[in-house]
Amino acid sequence: MNAYEFLNLGQSKKPRRSGLTMMLDKGLGSRSLDDLLNTSADYIDFAKFGWGTSAVINRDLIINKTSRYQAAGIMPYPGGTLLEVSVLKGKVDRFLKESRELGFTTIEVSDGSTEITKEERAKIIKKSREAGFYVISEVGKKNPILDHDLSISERLELIKSDLAYGSNYVLIEAREAGKDIGIYDADGNIIEDELEQLSSLGISKLIFEAPLKKQQAELILKFGSQINLGNIASDEVVSLETLRQGLRGDTIILLH
Amino acid sequence: MNAYEFLNLGQSKKPRRSGLTMMLDKGLGSRSLDDLLNTSADYIDFAKFGWGTSAVINRDLIINKTSRYQAAGIMPYPGGTLLEVSVLKGKVDRFLKESRELGFTTIEVSDGSTEITKEERAKIIKKSREAGFYVISEVGKKNPILDHDLSISERLELIKSDLAYGSNYVLIEAREAGKDIGIYDADGNIIEDELEQLSSLGISKLIFEAPLKKQQAELILKFGSQINLGNIASDEVVSLETLRQGLRGDTIILLH
Amino acid sequence: MNAYEFLNLGQSKKPRRSGLTMMLDKGLGSRSLDDLLNTSADYIDFAKFGWGTSAVINRDLIINKTSRYQAAGIMPYPGGTLLEVSVLKGKVDRFLKESRELGFTTIEVSDGSTEITKEERAKIIKKSREAGFYVISEVGKKNPILDHDLSISERLELIKSDLAYGSNYVLIEAREAGKDIGIYDADGNIIEDELEQLSSLGISKLIFEAPLKKQQAELILKFGSQINLGNIASDEVVSLETLRQGLRGDTIILLH
Repeated sequence: MNAYEFLNLGQSKKPRRSGLTMMLDKGLGSRSLDDLLNTSADYIDFAKFGWGTSAVINRDLIINKTSRYQAAGIMPYPGGTLLEVSVLKGKVDRFLKESRELGFTTIEVSDGSTEITKEERAKIIKKSREAGFYVISEVGKKNPILDHDLSISERLELIKSDLAYGSNYVLIEAREAGKDIGIYDADGNIIEDELEQLSSLGISKLIFEAPLKKQQAELILKFGSQINLGNIASDEVVSLETLRQGLRGDTIILLH
Repeated sequence: MNAYEFLNLGQSKKPRRSGLTMMLDKGLGSRSLDDLLNTSADYIDFAKFGWGTSAVINRDLIINKTSRYQAAGIMPYPGGTLLEVSVLKGKVDRFLKESRELGFTTIEVSDGSTEITKEERAKIIKKSREAGFYVISEVGKKNPILDHDLSISERLELIKSDLAYGSNYVLIEAREAGKDIGIYDADGNIIEDELEQLSSLGISKLIFEAPLKKQQAELILKFGSQINLGNIASDEVVSLETLRQGLRGDTIILLH
Repeated sequence: MNAYEFLNLGQSKKPRRSGLTMMLDKGLGSRSLDDLLNTSADYIDFAKFGWGTSAVINRDLIINKTSRYQAAGIMPYPGGTLLEVSVLKGKVDRFLKESRELGFTTIEVSDGSTEITKEERAKIIKKSREAGFYVISEVGKKNPILDHDLSISERLELIKSDLAYGSNYVLIEAREAGKDIGIYDADGNIIEDELEQLSSLGISKLIFEAPLKKQQAELILKFGSQINLGNIASDEVVSLETLRQGLRGDTIILLH
């Protein structure tokens, strides 16, 4: 039972289909994971092992972590960059096999750091689904110059086709820093016009990467606490939940 | 015994009445608390469970943490925002009862996120003192626009009346980020004139929230290491103590 | 064995003489150290107990930590500022004795926060080497105004003489924040001209402090993954290794 429960704040329960939180795990050790699961397990739906971090960590530790995430009802997955490296090296099948053996349940399909044709992207999404994985695809380029080149209509096109090919959710790229990329300007503020257009198809299948508190608060105020948010730092999950529940100055208006 | 003790750096001992440090706990788990208490217990006087974070954490974990803080001579308390939520919901008595049961020893009385009349504020301060709590009240608004509207004379008035009604200390609001609020400009630099006026009544009963290192260093250089500082991140407590003792470049001049 | 080993990413092994990483430990507790060593031991060569932090921590904890670092093939050392405080107080011999007793294997010789004559600097380097320590000297001033006064030719002179007197490596100062100091401008971007000149003598004996990801990425792209980097935050060591191996968008071009 949570403390101060008489305040009746209305917390959603897992498994849920909205108000999802994808947390960024950039190399947590076992004891940090103890703490994270004790304080925050109810508030995390996906744990992304950021970019290629899983490939520089001992297999046994990865397997230990994925099994503990799974036991806590959290779907662990390797960062999209690692898939892209596997594509570069012509080893996608091996990548899927290893990911399964490591206990990952979800695959992120992205082309943030490399060029991947639409055909190949579709093929990987389908293959991952067929192999039994949950799939999250990502739209956006990690390099700001390339990202600016990607028009809204191209983004919308990609979202639609990804979902058609089998993606369960589509992630809107913002990296770990959340600046000068996707819906955010160089200061990390939301570019309203981009957001409007991007959300024109509905937001239920989108997960917005939103590493900064002001981004989380603004998206919650705009779309409600049921918005799906990603790239949340591991020590910010509790804070994000307070934003969702109106327990922080930025969103207390939700309680009025 | 500390390492390098022959350097004789003059560290203050708890319980103390100046040079206080209020740390911000925004959801530490049990193992992180082990580390914190082992490295930093001597340097922390108050642990604030930031804003409404205590309400999204399991009761047993909160109780475990408050008892360990207390055993280490640290006074734990729930963030002022949670009291404000309780005021909004007309449940202040319940809030005080639950806070006591959870092992909190101190109450923060603020109106950073909501409107609370002066009469109600005074009443809550008195009621909390009568219920046996230590009281820290806070002056400042979390919304920068509202905060700018609060004049220095209003702030001074509030400080005086809070102390008269029974606050043990008055906290000068700066949030977790320390920018564009209270005595800090949008870059987190101190607005000298505001600080001068605010400290005109003396600083012994004030605790300045100072989350950024440059703020901590500047306040220590101006008022000495006995200045009371708050909203210190849990992994910055050791660093702050080095600033107080002149063991970092920014304040080494204290040793001359 | 690391996960995804079939990707064959070419990770260097310790002990190594290039591609060194110096991590900044600013007061890690024992459980955090468990995590750090489990995830990152292979990627850390030196652990600096930042500035004077070792002097505000219990001796037993310091001894426990240095022995665990050593067992993991990591050389622990106290920050240069603590040596400078010892010089100020006329207690260098006592400092070296205590450092050895605490289990530190390396000494950093700096004048970032104080004035130390060239003769004294040379004497301390030699004395430390004779006492059996590994020596890293540091070039740069922590105060930006004083740092700007230090010309490139003075820096080069100091590097050469430090190495001649026995320094094993020379550290290029950037502090914990990495801004407005040494080779970085106020935004933390590299000043290309400064870097060119500073690296004109070769980089194999230099360690560049590079706390920000963009600095790490840029230096790796310019000099290759074998560049020596320092002041890496403890929770960024895994990330840095992905940058070195081309496993993050910023440096994936290394794999092409």
